[in-house]
Amino acid sequence: MNEIEKPLILISNDDGINAKGIKSLVDFVKDLGEIVVVAPSFPQSGMGHAITIHEHIRLDRSLSYGDLEAYECSGTPVDCVKLAKHFILKDRKPDLVLSGINHGSNSSVSVIYSGTMSAAIEGAMEGIPSVGFSLCNYDHDADFEACRPFVRKVVEASLKDNFPSHTALNVNFPNLNLENIKGIKVCRQARARWQEEFENRKDPRGRDYFWLSGNFTNLDAGDDTDEAALANGFVSIVPCHFDLTAYASLAKVNEMFRQ
Amino acid sequence: MNEIEKPLILISNDDGINAKGIKSLVDFVKDLGEIVVVAPSFPQSGMGHAITIHEHIRLDRSLSYGDLEAYECSGTPVDCVKLAKHFILKDRKPDLVLSGINHGSNSSVSVIYSGTMSAAIEGAMEGIPSVGFSLCNYDHDADFEACRPFVRKVVEASLKDNFPSHTALNVNFPNLNLENIKGIKVCRQARARWQEEFENRKDPRGRDYFWLSGNFTNLDAGDDTDEAALANGFVSIVPCHFDLTAYASLAKVNEMFRQ
Repeated sequence: MNEIEKPLILISNDDGINAKGIKSLVDFVKDLGEIVVVAPSFPQSGMGHAITIHEHIRLDRSLSYGDLEAYECSGTPVDCVKLAKHFILKDRKPDLVLSGINHGSNSSVSVIYSGTMSAAIEGAMEGIPSVGFSLCNYDHDADFEACRPFVRKVVEASLKDNFPSHTALNVNFPNLNLENIKGIKVCRQARARWQEEFENRKDPRGRDYFWLSGNFTNLDAGDDTDEAALANGFVSIVPCHFDLTAYASLAKVNEMFRQ
Repeated sequence: MNEIEKPLILISNDDGINAKGIKSLVDFVKDLGEIVVVAPSFPQSGMGHAITIHEHIRLDRSLSYGDLEAYECSGTPVDCVKLAKHFILKDRKPDLVLSGINHGSNSSVSVIYSGTMSAAIEGAMEGIPSVGFSLCNYDHDADFEACRPFVRKVVEASLKDNFPSHTALNVNFPNLNLENIKGIKVCRQARARWQEEFENRKDPRGRDYFWLSGNFTNLDAGDDTDEAALANGFVSIVPCHFDLTAYASLAKVNEMFRQ
């Protein structure tokens, strides 16, 4: 960025442009840069890294952000970042992509399903420092106020020149009052799983339909994980990349296919 | 599995249950195990690791697979695997999850956007050996026949006991005749990016709408990548995990947040 200009901060989320979490995020950081909001028109939780290929996408100016430049997009969180970069911002590369604050945890393996984190990872894929924020509270009227000083600290640190390249930070906040949050811990992603359940119901015409639900189980006893940090009252930060290669398995897989 | 039973093979995809790719896959492996097909009712390309949270899911017996046990699901590829495991198969854990054969490449960073690979990664998250197959040909009437011996080789190798745990293989086939395919190479994911473009059109009422398109650019000169293998006429196999932690960046991020 030009030294006399404010940094350009692109903000998206997956709960939709009118969610309390993104409005809180914008409020927390609006003096730290020039803000452009491009977020889904409707909630897109659980969309993972989905993009819209088979449908067209709509984009409209949002009326919910006063004087700020804000757009709502009919697509996924990743579509929002792509459309922002290529249509709205054009030649202006953002200095930072922020996503969230998500209503609910995106720690551990939830990162894989998370639209919030996928928007941040899309930013990282474009070589832009990127951060996804999530609060461990699913309430649509959750109180995000305790996140404020930590969001500002993370954003200020991320705008310096030492952000690791092609990386997105996965920041999760414990659902605690500010005085009970012990600080920040940089962590690895915990091994864990979702034990899904499907509720099988009958519609008025007698046909089956299903609702997905499930319970999260931490399988990782390590004290260096995001789950451990959150359980102990810390804000967790996991640096995430998008190289899925299981390097530790390459030799074993080579063995499987030896001619 | 019980030694006197055939292995149980769950098959899904993202192009939809009536795509030529999944029908070819079933045909190639149907004598290698007991096959259960659970695939999306409609094409779901680019769905990444999306799951269906805000909508209910429908599941119906498919009439397209003769005597085979086959179901079409209104949800995403990941929903298909979850629903198969928890509702259709119940206590029977699959010995192998297969996904594909995708109509189009899922090499390099395309793995992040791929519904095909997300179905396989979901299997890996459940601790099931899992493989996603993709042919570098987007035609809906593509000829998958050259994939047959390699699919069988990969499936036979994957049913042995040495499959790396919590791993999914990303198998891509070059768009070549069988006699021109040089063999199999185990690889790492190439660094690359999609240079997106959006076509901006006007609907009959004068409102803007957008179509996503784009071009793939390989940024990786390494000869050990999936892109290099495919370009040289090999079938590429990348073992994929779902721990997104950028371990190499942990120290740098710790430095950013030192108190």
